[in-house]
Amino acid sequence: MHIGFLGLGNMGGPMARNLLKAGHTLTVFDPSPLATAALVELGARTANSPAELARDGVAAIVTMLPTAAHVKDVYLGAEGLLANVTRGVLLIDSSTIDPLSAREVAKAAAAQGNPMLDAPVSGGTGGAAAGTLTFMVGGTDSAFDHAHPLFAAMGKNIVHCGASGNGQVAKIANNMLLGISMVGVAEAMALGVALGMDAKVLAGIINTSSGRCWSSEINNPFPGVLENAPASRGYSGGFGTDLMLKDLGLATEAARHAKQPVVLGAAAQQLYQTFSLQGYGGLDFSAIINLFRREA
Amino acid sequence: MHIGFLGLGNMGGPMARNLLKAGHTLTVFDPSPLATAALVELGARTANSPAELARDGVAAIVTMLPTAAHVKDVYLGAEGLLANVTRGVLLIDSSTIDPLSAREVAKAAAAQGNPMLDAPVSGGTGGAAAGTLTFMVGGTDSAFDHAHPLFAAMGKNIVHCGASGNGQVAKIANNMLLGISMVGVAEAMALGVALGMDAKVLAGIINTSSGRCWSSEINNPFPGVLENAPASRGYSGGFGTDLMLKDLGLATEAARHAKQPVVLGAAAQQLYQTFSLQGYGGLDFSAIINLFRREA
Amino acid sequence: MHIGFLGLGNMGGPMARNLLKAGHTLTVFDPSPLATAALVELGARTANSPAELARDGVAAIVTMLPTAAHVKDVYLGAEGLLANVTRGVLLIDSSTIDPLSAREVAKAAAAQGNPMLDAPVSGGTGGAAAGTLTFMVGGTDSAFDHAHPLFAAMGKNIVHCGASGNGQVAKIANNMLLGISMVGVAEAMALGVALGMDAKVLAGIINTSSGRCWSSEINNPFPGVLENAPASRGYSGGFGTDLMLKDLGLATEAARHAKQPVVLGAAAQQLYQTFSLQGYGGLDFSAIINLFRREA
Amino acid sequence: MHIGFLGLGNMGGPMARNLLKAGHTLTVFDPSPLATAALVELGARTANSPAELARDGVAAIVTMLPTAAHVKDVYLGAEGLLANVTRGVLLIDSSTIDPLSAREVAKAAAAQGNPMLDAPVSGGTGGAAAGTLTFMVGGTDSAFDHAHPLFAAMGKNIVHCGASGNGQVAKIANNMLLGISMVGVAEAMALGVALGMDAKVLAGIINTSSGRCWSSEINNPFPGVLENAPASRGYSGGFGTDLMLKDLGLATEAARHAKQPVVLGAAAQQLYQTFSLQGYGGLDFSAIINLFRREA
Repeated sequence: MHIGFLGLGNMGGPMARNLLKAGHTLTVFDPSPLATAALVELGARTANSPAELARDGVAAIVTMLPTAAHVKDVYLGAEGLLANVTRGVLLIDSSTIDPLSAREVAKAAAAQGNPMLDAPVSGGTGGAAAGTLTFMVGGTDSAFDHAHPLFAAMGKNIVHCGASGNGQVAKIANNMLLGISMVGVAEAMALGVALGMDAKVLAGIINTSSGRCWSSEINNPFPGVLENAPASRGYSGGFGTDLMLKDLGLATEAARHAKQPVVLGAAAQQLYQTFSLQGYGGLDFSAIINLFRREA
Repeated sequence: MHIGFLGLGNMGGPMARNLLKAGHTLTVFDPSPLATAALVELGARTANSPAELARDGVAAIVTMLPTAAHVKDVYLGAEGLLANVTRGVLLIDSSTIDPLSAREVAKAAAAQGNPMLDAPVSGGTGGAAAGTLTFMVGGTDSAFDHAHPLFAAMGKNIVHCGASGNGQVAKIANNMLLGISMVGVAEAMALGVALGMDAKVLAGIINTSSGRCWSSEINNPFPGVLENAPASRGYSGGFGTDLMLKDLGLATEAARHAKQPVVLGAAAQQLYQTFSLQGYGGLDFSAIINLFRREA
Repeated sequence: MHIGFLGLGNMGGPMARNLLKAGHTLTVFDPSPLATAALVELGARTANSPAELARDGVAAIVTMLPTAAHVKDVYLGAEGLLANVTRGVLLIDSSTIDPLSAREVAKAAAAQGNPMLDAPVSGGTGGAAAGTLTFMVGGTDSAFDHAHPLFAAMGKNIVHCGASGNGQVAKIANNMLLGISMVGVAEAMALGVALGMDAKVLAGIINTSSGRCWSSEINNPFPGVLENAPASRGYSGGFGTDLMLKDLGLATEAARHAKQPVVLGAAAQQLYQTFSLQGYGGLDFSAIINLFRREA
Repeated sequence: MHIGFLGLGNMGGPMARNLLKAGHTLTVFDPSPLATAALVELGARTANSPAELARDGVAAIVTMLPTAAHVKDVYLGAEGLLANVTRGVLLIDSSTIDPLSAREVAKAAAAQGNPMLDAPVSGGTGGAAAGTLTFMVGGTDSAFDHAHPLFAAMGKNIVHCGASGNGQVAKIANNMLLGISMVGVAEAMALGVALGMDAKVLAGIINTSSGRCWSSEINNPFPGVLENAPASRGYSGGFGTDLMLKDLGLATEAARHAKQPVVLGAAAQQLYQTFSLQGYGGLDFSAIINLFRREA
């Protein structure tokens, strides 16, 4: 299939490479010449603008952008994708943005005959490179079926979450819970150790009890509990605190519009914000445990 | 072995029965004649006071009491166990109390030559009846080894958590995390559904993603997601909100003494307290989701 | 002075009337014919659109609108004020919106030669009718001086808060603190009474001690403490819970953009949201105390 | 009057001096010889134990101790005051402790014919030295009237809060609100300044608006707003963060026993605990603003 790919950053770049590897042809666009050059080397064509990309005979377009403002601009702008794309071309936005914006853009696309899916991912840059991302997809059944081979080229776990916007809903609901659980594990581990327990013993008990969760089993925030977790290498790599902050902001904003209370979600957001203010926004989000431990 | 058992309530009663079943002989004490009668029928001897129980030639004593005040009274009181028990008799307290009190009592016992273990349980009244409780045990290696057959008669998962008091530490750390996770799952599920997702689809995504935890997988608070969870039967049965409140109170109090922040732990405690004040303290703690959902 | 007035709701209507009373002539616009008719009766001219109002020879325009989206639409839209107003006309927006939007609109106005002030108010519909509003004003000194007589016709306390947007900053910072203090007073009063104190005695002590604040002295949430407070008339009248929610949403959103933690601000927002979800959004915000009291 | 005074620390020492100045005779006790020596120099007699003090012909005894455990020990211990004091002697405890403990001790005193008042103070070491303390007093009318001259010698504002324990209730309710308000002011000031406002202008607006409170007017946490506040001298002096933590701990514990939610009270406690953990427990509690500001 001939695919347009817009947004070749840390996530978009490797995703586009996996589409090429799977035998698709690509036309790419990114404001950074370096980013496009890397794809051109692997055989992609380049476009000079979103409009040019949309007109390059593509059967589908994938976008991977930082914020809802970028997504709206790229799709709805006077020189944007919708104004230039052929009727019937499938549109896939893999950016993580708020569900309301996702639905607004998809509605405009559908109104002019372009099926659109919101398809945010989880799995990080590692998953993007390895082609093992999880895609949480919102949109019609037919668009989902149509897009499935593309997702399969870039990811491993592809979940249809329901109608338009529900991919974003699933992502922010899951990540809000993740952000809360991690603070919970951090507090429980720090408390247990302060009261005299060995961290590994405590983690072992939690992981076979009702406190167990992804954050205790896979990304335990206490240094030394898991050899390969960020906590055991100075909290480098992993999922950055500021990225968690972004997702928690999306969740609490969506909750505000839905008039839905998220008490611990909002509290977790404020704790990561406090930690980020102290200069640690670049560390894996499990580093939040340092807010609760006396410095060595 | 001849064992004294003190405290024959909803938990202690079935635990004592399982000791009898395993072939041990028992002398029991409880202020309620009905509770003792049930055990006497099964072959237990009865004592008229803790002091009498302590003097009845027992090789070990197990206690299961509601609060630290009861534990201190029963062990340290003028007419209590320590004042009457023979040197060398093994003491096991399975009450859930704060670690400081547990250590204080164990220290007094050790000082007069009675090894003592704190051994709070999880698994509820169902686990007590079935003999499948988890025991989280604090105390010396030799006391732990000595007591192991007794635990094995009453439970399935027996974990040595380290020195005296660490059984209690493990229990309150785990349960604080559990209390936080449940609120997190409740908020995430309520938010996702308010934003248009199907509850089962959302639970499925969370359970295969980084938000997964015991509360989402085993005790999901959204009605209808799990057929056998309390949420699907009006939140009856399960682990009561007021019991969760008790454990969160123990955790935040222990944190206060350890000068350890537990921000979400304290917030979760206050939410369950708010919910209990509205009259729902007897419902399974997953009912906390009703604080975040518009009434039908 | 000939003034355009756009937005004749519960606040804008009486504000416009006070400008008429002070001898100014008005051209008004509102989508509701009833709202405009009331002003026409008092001598105002009416316009059929914001564009027509802007072209009606006005020397200044005052707007009073519900949200930032309305403000942006009215000022920046193709048929909006900026596209139609004469260079030099003074623009005053008294809506309560986020500071970033206020600054964006004011910058666009300034760029085409129209000085603009953000001038949100406090004092409620009572203050609007009585002409005793407080105006918190952001913008240049000369625009502030120029607008002063208009503010003086509608209000009593007119404060220059600094450059563009700072009127909004002052309003949301103050109201966030107000929202927090009210919850604080509610918790303290409910706790004191639960522990056996008389509510009036407790309020008296707080009001002469370090806990005193506007919420304890002027709008005490405990029924019967102040004869004339909403708490003593079923929480009717006053400043609605949902209006407080709106302002807390503006504050936490502005904080998010400024990467500034507001832990208690966010917590207070979630509590009012929880209370509103239970169906009480129309009650004075002091009714939040009912979240902390067992129902009678 | 001949008075026994027990506890001659930073608060008790100057309080005892003011009783001497007012013409009373004193018998004092404190474990520190230095502390007693200072009072002996001013004419006080000294006792070698609480028991000896109680038997020294005193008409009233005042105690000023750090915790409820000390109070219970001193009053209820085998060698304590109640076991040795003459029937009818008036007992006044000015320690800040939980209301339940205060009521327990007062009840024991009353049962043997000794009227007892709980009378915690506010005003700090400065107020203790100047004799301008506020006394919040719980107990019977007759005991209050009887003790009034003693309070008047040590303080300025003497408030009868109702029955036994209510002095403590008033103190912890007020101080919980104070702890919340201070965090609220800190967040509002930090947010306003981050959004571009001048701190003094913002404080001025808040202090004439609905956000005004003791913490904004008298102890504003932003440096430079008030010349004489701790914030303008590196947060030295004032009311220490760890003392605020103690009072918040008493408030949340009392709330727990009363089954009363204190959501923001508990959140504020955790924030001060987090700040104390970072090493700042000795600074005035207004320094909590540094948790919300990027370090210079």
